[in-house]
Amino acid sequence: MEFTVEQIAFMLNGEVKGDKSLKVSQLAKIEEGTEGTISFLANLKYEQYLYTTKASAVIVDKSFEPKKEYSPTLILVENAYTAFTTLLQEYQKLIAGSKKGIEQPSFISESSTLGGNHYVGAFAYIGNNVTIGENVKIYPHAYIGDNVKVGDNSTIYAGVKIYEGCVVGNHCTVHANAVIGADGFGFAPQSDGTYQTIPQLGNVVLEDHVSIGANTCIDRATMGSTVIKVGAKIDNLVQVAHNVEVGKNTVIAAQTGISGSSKIGENCMIGGQVGIAGHLQIANRTIITAQSGISKNIKKEGTVLSGSPAVENTENLRSHVLYRKLPTIEQRLREVENKLK
Amino acid sequence: MEFTVEQIAFMLNGEVKGDKSLKVSQLAKIEEGTEGTISFLANLKYEQYLYTTKASAVIVDKSFEPKKEYSPTLILVENAYTAFTTLLQEYQKLIAGSKKGIEQPSFISESSTLGGNHYVGAFAYIGNNVTIGENVKIYPHAYIGDNVKVGDNSTIYAGVKIYEGCVVGNHCTVHANAVIGADGFGFAPQSDGTYQTIPQLGNVVLEDHVSIGANTCIDRATMGSTVIKVGAKIDNLVQVAHNVEVGKNTVIAAQTGISGSSKIGENCMIGGQVGIAGHLQIANRTIITAQSGISKNIKKEGTVLSGSPAVENTENLRSHVLYRKLPTIEQRLREVENKLK
Amino acid sequence: MEFTVEQIAFMLNGEVKGDKSLKVSQLAKIEEGTEGTISFLANLKYEQYLYTTKASAVIVDKSFEPKKEYSPTLILVENAYTAFTTLLQEYQKLIAGSKKGIEQPSFISESSTLGGNHYVGAFAYIGNNVTIGENVKIYPHAYIGDNVKVGDNSTIYAGVKIYEGCVVGNHCTVHANAVIGADGFGFAPQSDGTYQTIPQLGNVVLEDHVSIGANTCIDRATMGSTVIKVGAKIDNLVQVAHNVEVGKNTVIAAQTGISGSSKIGENCMIGGQVGIAGHLQIANRTIITAQSGISKNIKKEGTVLSGSPAVENTENLRSHVLYRKLPTIEQRLREVENKLK
Repeated sequence: MEFTVEQIAFMLNGEVKGDKSLKVSQLAKIEEGTEGTISFLANLKYEQYLYTTKASAVIVDKSFEPKKEYSPTLILVENAYTAFTTLLQEYQKLIAGSKKGIEQPSFISESSTLGGNHYVGAFAYIGNNVTIGENVKIYPHAYIGDNVKVGDNSTIYAGVKIYEGCVVGNHCTVHANAVIGADGFGFAPQSDGTYQTIPQLGNVVLEDHVSIGANTCIDRATMGSTVIKVGAKIDNLVQVAHNVEVGKNTVIAAQTGISGSSKIGENCMIGGQVGIAGHLQIANRTIITAQSGISKNIKKEGTVLSGSPAVENTENLRSHVLYRKLPTIEQRLREVENKLK
Repeated sequence: MEFTVEQIAFMLNGEVKGDKSLKVSQLAKIEEGTEGTISFLANLKYEQYLYTTKASAVIVDKSFEPKKEYSPTLILVENAYTAFTTLLQEYQKLIAGSKKGIEQPSFISESSTLGGNHYVGAFAYIGNNVTIGENVKIYPHAYIGDNVKVGDNSTIYAGVKIYEGCVVGNHCTVHANAVIGADGFGFAPQSDGTYQTIPQLGNVVLEDHVSIGANTCIDRATMGSTVIKVGAKIDNLVQVAHNVEVGKNTVIAAQTGISGSSKIGENCMIGGQVGIAGHLQIANRTIITAQSGISKNIKKEGTVLSGSPAVENTENLRSHVLYRKLPTIEQRLREVENKLK
Repeated sequence: MEFTVEQIAFMLNGEVKGDKSLKVSQLAKIEEGTEGTISFLANLKYEQYLYTTKASAVIVDKSFEPKKEYSPTLILVENAYTAFTTLLQEYQKLIAGSKKGIEQPSFISESSTLGGNHYVGAFAYIGNNVTIGENVKIYPHAYIGDNVKVGDNSTIYAGVKIYEGCVVGNHCTVHANAVIGADGFGFAPQSDGTYQTIPQLGNVVLEDHVSIGANTCIDRATMGSTVIKVGAKIDNLVQVAHNVEVGKNTVIAAQTGISGSSKIGENCMIGGQVGIAGHLQIANRTIITAQSGISKNIKKEGTVLSGSPAVENTENLRSHVLYRKLPTIEQRLREVENKLK
């Protein structure tokens, strides 16, 4: 897709300073701009790049006054950052919007219903009694098991597997090869050392505005539901075990694992590679730094935790600083011992 | 599926107390019961919920005597927990049992053989010279490479990829998007700083009653086999490298990684996010707590380990308690130094 | 595939000592050799196995002189290890070489182009304006999004998902269910506690000779490219976030995660389960041991790091040894205190 600078300025309600007929086809950071790209300058820390960038056009604040010569055409707007974000979103809509209709071969059970303005990619599989809302995109190789519900405006990317009976809300995004609703890890030890499988008969519920990363696993509940609440954002390769609840607007970075039945509060921020033990309660607005291990309930809202097993972050930092100094501490102790001999 | 309380009581060889004609269609925990669900009360710790639950029916021990009024119909049985487990299993069989036959389009090489009572989902791929036993379910988008063998009564869920020449035993379950038999990570460093790929020509053998979690990777051996022994249960997102052996009835929680050629004993319990270095021997019945890192052979059976690098658990806890007290320890040392000045 | 010992000796330019007509069909380690396998003896540490192995044939150095009786036919070559590696590679070529042509049903957009000598498996999906080079293998259930480019001699295994606009170089291997180009994890916090999605419009570039493991995720850049440079080798279940650069010939073991915008140098060796924070620079030839957490720039080339947060390895080991001794240190301190009372 190619646009003239004039077309873009019109869309952003901006004013052009320079060659209006220049064509741009891609977006770029100002320091990485090349011919045919459009960029923006919002933070004056990056002003230097305006004078060297090879971008064809740069969006700037109306109020901005250049101090040196520059080559790009400028688009003057009220707020360059906001305008550029608008541009990013429009660009993404254009790309995504091109996917429409049902590609063949695909497998759609006659007992399922599909809302309007849909995309179903080739080799997508939609099982029995599935209900799919309006404006939903289901990419190739996605598997939607029997009795699954998918709300409006959601996107299920290539290769996602959603097991029987799970529920996906409105405005959700599930990235490629994520697995929603596989059996929870439940095995009862027998007296002869073997394990008996405990049937996992619950499901997974993703509420509205939930985002799930690539290759992430959300296991179905033993009974009842594993729930990811409205607005929660989960990164790639995350493990969410059976009967877990992830609170509203909580953000979880890549490769974190949450063990069975733990309840994570609202607006928590959980770093990458964190481990959370089973059957815990984590208060709202808890912040957990990367690689921490949580082994106890967190009752106080807004606590910052680190370490494995994790404690309050400033406490952990104090211990850690002294851990690094252990050779000196041991040396000081030896000197004291020598004096006392 | 909907049943009357009378039908369920008949199946469980129980006696109904209340309305026999009530219909139930789902199982629930007693504290989460709603109209149309059936639950159970085995542990008297939960007795209070019997008097408030909205479940339509509750299974209880024959010997149980209610202390207050309650609304559900009761089913009296010899042992409520056992009866409910039976119900869970029957329910799961009903759901799973509905999948039969070969959906189209699917790809089944003419040189492969398929046992009786099978399910092959749409878009499943079965390569050349594959042998598949009786009562096997192969879900949509599963890939069974050339010369693979799958035993009787095994289930291969959607999107599982099994590379050429691997073997899956009887009564195995492989969850969605797991990868069995990808190349082991073998590269020989060259003098110019590049790496040469070492061909990985072995395979993976899953023995009987093995369970593999979603998005888990079991790499093929360089030569010979990576082996998961009978009854081992492996959770989601686990990495098992080339030439590893996982012992009989060993249980491995999510996101754990085992490096090349390590041999894990029987009946071990390995927590989540554990890392095990390469070429190690881990004794039978070893217990490794979550997030530990194992860097040495474990020779003594039944050892409990924690920490990274891990040591015997009680030893690690002693060190860890003092790590948390390092600020006090350093303060005490300073006081001693001051006295000696 | 079955060969006579004579055929193999001819291929390796070796001399047969024993029965030339014996047939072998598999490769094995000398300690695991069975009838019908061929093995090798290069390191004399393993000489004992020559006298007990059941392998039908063993490749040995010309200069080797057996000290006892042995049963296998020998193939004498200049260098047994090199000869065996050649054999491994030839064997792998034979297996891989059997895949040719386009299996049906597959989905190939008319606007895409496919080089000669290709394999496209059943249920593979190739979107619009895709360009695929010579000698490329695309296995079943692979998804190649619109505008993707794949160079010559690359292999895309079953279930790999490559999002729109990404680039795969020449001689690359991407293992099953890896996801290339899913959205980077970018969400802007709003004043009401919700998060707004930041569109991710860049792509992923895998340069030549790159290997990507099974179920690994490489996220697309927000703008610009996430780049995996020539010769880098990445294991299974690794997370590479948006705008990361992985340097030439760098090797990354399983389950490691690299946060957004970090730049990893050339010829680094990164162990398993390592976490690297965002926006860092890691110097060339850095070595990071398993489970370490990197929170700072590494400026000095060839540094060896361990711990979480990681420091120089020998420094970390010194602290760690004393951590293990903390109970003794505290005891010594108590004795000193008692003396001073």
